[in-house]
Amino acid sequence: MPRYALLVEYDGAPFVGWQRQAGSLSVQQVLEDAAAPLNGGQPAATQASGRTDAGVHAEGQVVQIELSAELEPLRLREALNFHTRPHPVSVLAAARAPEGWSARFSCTGRGYRYRILNRRARPALEAGRVWHVQQPLDAAAMHAAAQSLLGRHDFSAFRAAACQAKSALRTLDRLDVARLGDEVVVHTEARSFLHHQVRNMVGTLLQVGLGRRPASWPRRLLDGRDRTLAGQNAPPEGLTFLFARYDTPPDWC
Amino acid sequence: MPRYALLVEYDGAPFVGWQRQAGSLSVQQVLEDAAAPLNGGQPAATQASGRTDAGVHAEGQVVQIELSAELEPLRLREALNFHTRPHPVSVLAAARAPEGWSARFSCTGRGYRYRILNRRARPALEAGRVWHVQQPLDAAAMHAAAQSLLGRHDFSAFRAAACQAKSALRTLDRLDVARLGDEVVVHTEARSFLHHQVRNMVGTLLQVGLGRRPASWPRRLLDGRDRTLAGQNAPPEGLTFLFARYDTPPDWC
Repeated sequence: MPRYALLVEYDGAPFVGWQRQAGSLSVQQVLEDAAAPLNGGQPAATQASGRTDAGVHAEGQVVQIELSAELEPLRLREALNFHTRPHPVSVLAAARAPEGWSARFSCTGRGYRYRILNRRARPALEAGRVWHVQQPLDAAAMHAAAQSLLGRHDFSAFRAAACQAKSALRTLDRLDVARLGDEVVVHTEARSFLHHQVRNMVGTLLQVGLGRRPASWPRRLLDGRDRTLAGQNAPPEGLTFLFARYDTPPDWC
Repeated sequence: MPRYALLVEYDGAPFVGWQRQAGSLSVQQVLEDAAAPLNGGQPAATQASGRTDAGVHAEGQVVQIELSAELEPLRLREALNFHTRPHPVSVLAAARAPEGWSARFSCTGRGYRYRILNRRARPALEAGRVWHVQQPLDAAAMHAAAQSLLGRHDFSAFRAAACQAKSALRTLDRLDVARLGDEVVVHTEARSFLHHQVRNMVGTLLQVGLGRRPASWPRRLLDGRDRTLAGQNAPPEGLTFLFARYDTPPDWC
């Protein structure tokens, strides 16, 4: 079965998340069903570089898809964008998968952005794309605290109860917090993240930004490895999957 | 009646535009109805610095509102943001109106942004916020052509058939076109615009960007003053009202 790579943008709002789930609409189902006309009428099998939760968006999700026949990547992209309509899922680029390449297992880095709208007035234009926090946040204090989480650690304190990873050891390469006008924007990157890790880190940093906890608190939480003590899990709508890195990236077209 | 100024953000998608219209939902109606509890139960009278069409968004619309009683601007803002829910209209700031100030007639400059998403794949995240144009655009050629429209001219060639302005003389202060990644973004500013002027100018510049017309064409159209020859009226969803300028700006809080 020829394997292809897809670069995919989606609005997470109407979906139960990336992963197929009986009785609910997932991004995976939209893509697999859209590929059926190109796959002898059968839904095609896909795997994503990062499984996003319900409500989480993607600007550069990378997906592998198996088709029964060879197809020009350009035609694949156009056909999928025709058949995914009217769902807010768009294939930005497609490629023949490199030899031995897996969207998930070949991925060497994943990047996310988390947007906090930090003003009194509720969002009108960015509703569903930001976490609205009305109390003023100290972004510099959040950034300073974030730096203490970088490196290789057991991130048990920031994992979801339902997280299925065998080990909680992860290497956090970037966790930057910056103010951009009314927004406080978090950028983070790691080879991989635990389930809810980004949103739990953001919810924890928020407590520092509000002045309720000192900048040393997130690192103390990390060292304590107790999942029940972290800040709230930040809501999904502020989170966007930005990119997946590969040593041998697909030759997009 | 005390007069207040409001700085307002809205998503134009669900509205027939700024202006009240029987049987359809307008931004004006949402704000006037939301103010009723602060106005002895009666909808309050409003006027906007710029009346936007159906589907056109605003990040910084300025609105005047007359209330029957004095009110702290901060309380006014909070109360309106409570009562405008769940509509995508948000009051970012409020102020007591300066003496003799009118949102519409004191305004000395209005700024708009028009966003074109210029890529093959349809928008997923920016659907309803951009004009999707699949053929590659030459933004530099569009910018060069745009410069020939600056200054004081009769803009009849770019007005709507329904435009009610007595004179088509307007002074265009800025019309910049720039590429930002996948987007071609137009910024424009004038003391005032004719009805549909911005969208007609964008639709005309698009013909230059596609290479179908020379960079000299928009100026020839302008000089010809014939409303029927311009490019298509660019769709409303790409347009956002950004700001209104005043010699004596409201003291926002």
